[in-house]
Amino acid sequence: MKPKQTTEARFAYEGLDRVIHERARLSVLTSLITNPNGLSFVDLKRLCNLTDGNLARHLQVLEKESLVKIIKDDGPSRPQTFCRITTSGRTRYLEYLEILEQVVRDAASVASEDTEARFLKKLSPITS
Amino acid sequence: MKPKQTTEARFAYEGLDRVIHERARLSVLTSLITNPNGLSFVDLKRLCNLTDGNLARHLQVLEKESLVKIIKDDGPSRPQTFCRITTSGRTRYLEYLEILEQVVRDAASVASEDTEARFLKKLSPITS
Repeated sequence: MKPKQTTEARFAYEGLDRVIHERARLSVLTSLITNPNGLSFVDLKRLCNLTDGNLARHLQVLEKESLVKIIKDDGPSRPQTFCRITTSGRTRYLEYLEILEQVVRDAASVASEDTEARFLKKLSPITS
Repeated sequence: MKPKQTTEARFAYEGLDRVIHERARLSVLTSLITNPNGLSFVDLKRLCNLTDGNLARHLQVLEKESLVKIIKDDGPSRPQTFCRITTSGRTRYLEYLEILEQVVRDAASVASEDTEARFLKKLSPITS
């Protein structure tokens, strides 16, 4: 079968920003974009199921890219670290999200055919 | 602000299979799932905008994981390499896709608010 399009990079998804696409960082940024007022390090760790070291390492990458802001609260009580997504982080995440939606759309027609096939297969022992 | 859920790994997306999630491999597998009869190496390279070496390397990873089948056609004419997704590759890709859809859904409400905000911002020089 001939591919649908061969003259262009139809499935290249150049916009899938590698900084955001990495699974742990996608996890961190999705937590932060849905909690725009920020999250504590402890909550973020739990929501993303990451170890202290792993979360710290990924936050460092994200902060270097100005995608997140890390706020260290050295107040009179126990010191806490808070994280929030920056305005540019939000913009860049939303641009990334558009490409992710494109991947889902590209595969969606195939997926729905498959779901139907699996559904019919499940039915077959009863109907046959 | 308190996060919506702190007791579970709400945003961990453990199902985001690292073998599939890597951008070039996601590109290759999406090309192959939408072209179930297979694609030539040359067409795949063009659709994914990958170099010979890069595509070969990623196909090797995918073949080792039994996600794709590589068929070398050494017939009388010019030898050609064809690739197609395997049945288990298809299943594993569709499982991955479900998690990807979850990420999109999680971020969708935020994205739509943002689009609205950007739309209003664009309008403001006219309306104000």
